[in-house]
Amino acid sequence: MAGAYPYTVYRGTFIHLPKLSSSSAKPELVRNQGVLWVSSEDGRIKGHDWNVKDDASFKSFLSSHGWTDGHGRGTKVKVVESNDARNEFFFPGFIDSHIHAPQFPNLGLFGSSGLLGWLDEYTFPEEASFGSKSDPKNQDIDPKKTPAQGLRVYDQVITRTLAHGTTCASYFATIHVPATNALAALAYKHGQRAFIGRVCMDNKEQCPDYYVDQSADEGLNATIRTIDYIQKLDPNGTLVNPIVTPRFAPSCSNHSLSSLGELAAKYNPPLHIQTHISENLDEVELVHQLFPDSSSYAEVYDKHHLLTNRTILAHGVHLTHDERTLIRERGSKVAHCPASNSALGSGLAPVRAMLEDGLTVGLGTDVSGGYSPSILEVARQASLVSRMLSFSSEYQQMNGDLGNTTTNGHEKLSVPEILYLATRGGAGVVDMADDIGGFDKGMIWDAQLIELGAVKNYTQSPLDGEGVNSLATRDQRNVKAGTVGGVDLFGDETWEEQIEKWMWGGDDRNVKNVWVQGKLVHTRD
Amino acid sequence: MAGAYPYTVYRGTFIHLPKLSSSSAKPELVRNQGVLWVSSEDGRIKGHDWNVKDDASFKSFLSSHGWTDGHGRGTKVKVVESNDARNEFFFPGFIDSHIHAPQFPNLGLFGSSGLLGWLDEYTFPEEASFGSKSDPKNQDIDPKKTPAQGLRVYDQVITRTLAHGTTCASYFATIHVPATNALAALAYKHGQRAFIGRVCMDNKEQCPDYYVDQSADEGLNATIRTIDYIQKLDPNGTLVNPIVTPRFAPSCSNHSLSSLGELAAKYNPPLHIQTHISENLDEVELVHQLFPDSSSYAEVYDKHHLLTNRTILAHGVHLTHDERTLIRERGSKVAHCPASNSALGSGLAPVRAMLEDGLTVGLGTDVSGGYSPSILEVARQASLVSRMLSFSSEYQQMNGDLGNTTTNGHEKLSVPEILYLATRGGAGVVDMADDIGGFDKGMIWDAQLIELGAVKNYTQSPLDGEGVNSLATRDQRNVKAGTVGGVDLFGDETWEEQIEKWMWGGDDRNVKNVWVQGKLVHTRD
Repeated sequence: MAGAYPYTVYRGTFIHLPKLSSSSAKPELVRNQGVLWVSSEDGRIKGHDWNVKDDASFKSFLSSHGWTDGHGRGTKVKVVESNDARNEFFFPGFIDSHIHAPQFPNLGLFGSSGLLGWLDEYTFPEEASFGSKSDPKNQDIDPKKTPAQGLRVYDQVITRTLAHGTTCASYFATIHVPATNALAALAYKHGQRAFIGRVCMDNKEQCPDYYVDQSADEGLNATIRTIDYIQKLDPNGTLVNPIVTPRFAPSCSNHSLSSLGELAAKYNPPLHIQTHISENLDEVELVHQLFPDSSSYAEVYDKHHLLTNRTILAHGVHLTHDERTLIRERGSKVAHCPASNSALGSGLAPVRAMLEDGLTVGLGTDVSGGYSPSILEVARQASLVSRMLSFSSEYQQMNGDLGNTTTNGHEKLSVPEILYLATRGGAGVVDMADDIGGFDKGMIWDAQLIELGAVKNYTQSPLDGEGVNSLATRDQRNVKAGTVGGVDLFGDETWEEQIEKWMWGGDDRNVKNVWVQGKLVHTRD
Repeated sequence: MAGAYPYTVYRGTFIHLPKLSSSSAKPELVRNQGVLWVSSEDGRIKGHDWNVKDDASFKSFLSSHGWTDGHGRGTKVKVVESNDARNEFFFPGFIDSHIHAPQFPNLGLFGSSGLLGWLDEYTFPEEASFGSKSDPKNQDIDPKKTPAQGLRVYDQVITRTLAHGTTCASYFATIHVPATNALAALAYKHGQRAFIGRVCMDNKEQCPDYYVDQSADEGLNATIRTIDYIQKLDPNGTLVNPIVTPRFAPSCSNHSLSSLGELAAKYNPPLHIQTHISENLDEVELVHQLFPDSSSYAEVYDKHHLLTNRTILAHGVHLTHDERTLIRERGSKVAHCPASNSALGSGLAPVRAMLEDGLTVGLGTDVSGGYSPSILEVARQASLVSRMLSFSSEYQQMNGDLGNTTTNGHEKLSVPEILYLATRGGAGVVDMADDIGGFDKGMIWDAQLIELGAVKNYTQSPLDGEGVNSLATRDQRNVKAGTVGGVDLFGDETWEEQIEKWMWGGDDRNVKNVWVQGKLVHTRD
């Protein structure tokens, strides 16, 4: 729906990562200053002008389009400015390519045991709580049948991720139809771009008896009911889309995997698919035992036609080169979830090797294996993991354990590379590389306004003035912690260094506004 | 100095980690509810009463001491309460046992190269900028000779660490006497407990020519001038103390190392000492080359009498079992800096092995090898590193690389273990185990009031009410991101789970107040 004005003109500083011209090119940050305008009708970027540098040229720009910001004649447009004095800039929205919405209340709760204990103690009971007592057979479709606490959790996970600048998320829900539909309805209501998947898990040997599809067919039918609901909610799939979601190979029967592969292919266009792959070594071993006819984990999915060019594979920590080659050939994508992989001790995913094998890679929070709903936090962990991987290789080479593994920091991902994964990479993973993740003309305005804050202003020497000792009777003391969020600027940083500081120190306090499809969906408190 | 009241009575919820009864005991979180009182005269805890549960018993408690909160007769005391409805609790202040104050502006700036490139490109130039042009020979002692930007940096690092709940920090300054003294003066002024060390580095082969002590003796004399200044500033060493700081073995001549060991021993009580050890493999190799007469890195320090029971050794990632044994025998302590070790790819420090070898271990931010001034962030990284180490061991064992290394998550540090490192552990590292890090009677009130926030209140179903689509013309929308900081509570958490959520999701927004030596030194904006 159009607002009261046909266009919004964004004016100020724009930073993004241009699409790579070739697979061997390195991502680079680009900063432009000027104006960019977005149509209210479709939320897309209609043009930009980097020659608009001051008020005079802005005025000419407006009048050349027959526009006014309210102070002159012409069609009224909305103007949104970034403030240079506060070191503000527009940046593409983040894309969370793997997140379990119902696990949100368990952020930070890992218990004392390992992955299996964590699933049994925290994850499955939490997910099971999204079922409705009045709908034991999972026959309903009405979102309102979702338990009240479940609705609150879904409301909060969407609110929180938006507040962290996540404009698009690919969500795993639970096995429950009403709750899955509620997640879709709430994403739609909040204006977040989302892929919503009812989780399919019918292998009773591998799933708890209180939380499992009663059969492959019952699961398939339940999935279809969520697809129908979501496609009715957003008929053009502008904002919210269904995604076929077998939990992972061990939790599904062969029959379930096959029918889900067929189901996705039946639609026009085919539906997206998401699942997990090669997250940890025990799991890989289990897959070999459960699927002895397949030579690899990736082949299990391939046999069931689940490796498509619309498939998101979460993790991929322990994929072999052959598996990566197969995945690239099928055009499937990888959601890298380093915060989760480190927290669960799953391993260090070799992102450099994935990229060199030609894979499309994005970032995922993997709430609540990951402990944070912030893609910026995941970006930090992606860097740390790549740096530790670099160390590991060097260390093992020094000790003669590895042959010709590349070393010398080769695995290290740079800040621009990681921010590319968080934006363009994620856009590729959700199969929207031409639409989101950057500020090219024609792309959708899914964006965030970042405020780093000003350099702290000192009116006197820090050595002068009252110390804490003279305040002993005043009881209270307001110490301004500095600039915005965790970022401290001292005024001598280049703009690229400011971005590095943001990546390493920023949080949701730095996210001033968030837009999806040209609509404002979040304003910082 | 006493305030207008002789005591402050803290009332509400107190959480800390009791001192371990034996070296094999496991740290546990303990929660008490009631009152605890602190003398204004010396800032120490004079007693607590966990039977005070309600207003009536609080009234009786006050009158039994002859005190009043202003509503009755008696000596007026100050009352500070934690608010249960906001899930507030008092917690011991954090201790940052290793931080480079002058590197604060470089947080998040790592450049594209490795450790050496980082030192040359960022660290040494930044540290060198703390020198005064009017004092090229480093003869001055006056803090005011410090360049204005240096004062701002030191002011900000103290402000920021206090805001993150760091009540005590062991700082590396630079080689400059005025700037080192300024750091001490500012810590004293802000009321932060601090150890302040002028960095000694006289090995011209290993240090940049623009940033090096001109000789061992010149360095020694400069160090003495900072010790004199600091001991005059705070004659009883109540808050701020000097600490002898050879940067690390490779940056110092044998003569310098020896004379610094002698210097520390000469004082009564002997001075504290801090340095780096076994941070990365190249460095270890360099030490072997530079000190061929010593059989290990630890032995280099031991030979120069720098391994004392008042010595803080930062990192220790690659220490051998024999070195750990020597360090334990000497009573020296280790500052574990996982955020830095991961960011610089230095390796995974085996904290479990350190603890099992009987070492005292605390946490350090290692700003700016570490990218955050927050000990809570370091706590998270300590957990992640211990989990990856656990994975590594299992992985290597699976692949036959390791013999009888313990596995099965043995290396994993629990949340209570890590919070113990952040408080009691750090207190031991700075040789104040009887004074700070916990809430025992007689200890100093170095504490923080943590606010996790309330459970988000929903007055209607999240499915009802206005969606973002109906707001298209309103331009602005306030989405309450939820509770305080990064912590989301849903109301069904145990108090131990609340602490886990805080450790994994908390930040400076959750730090409402900070006290050092019984004085309020920070209040959240």
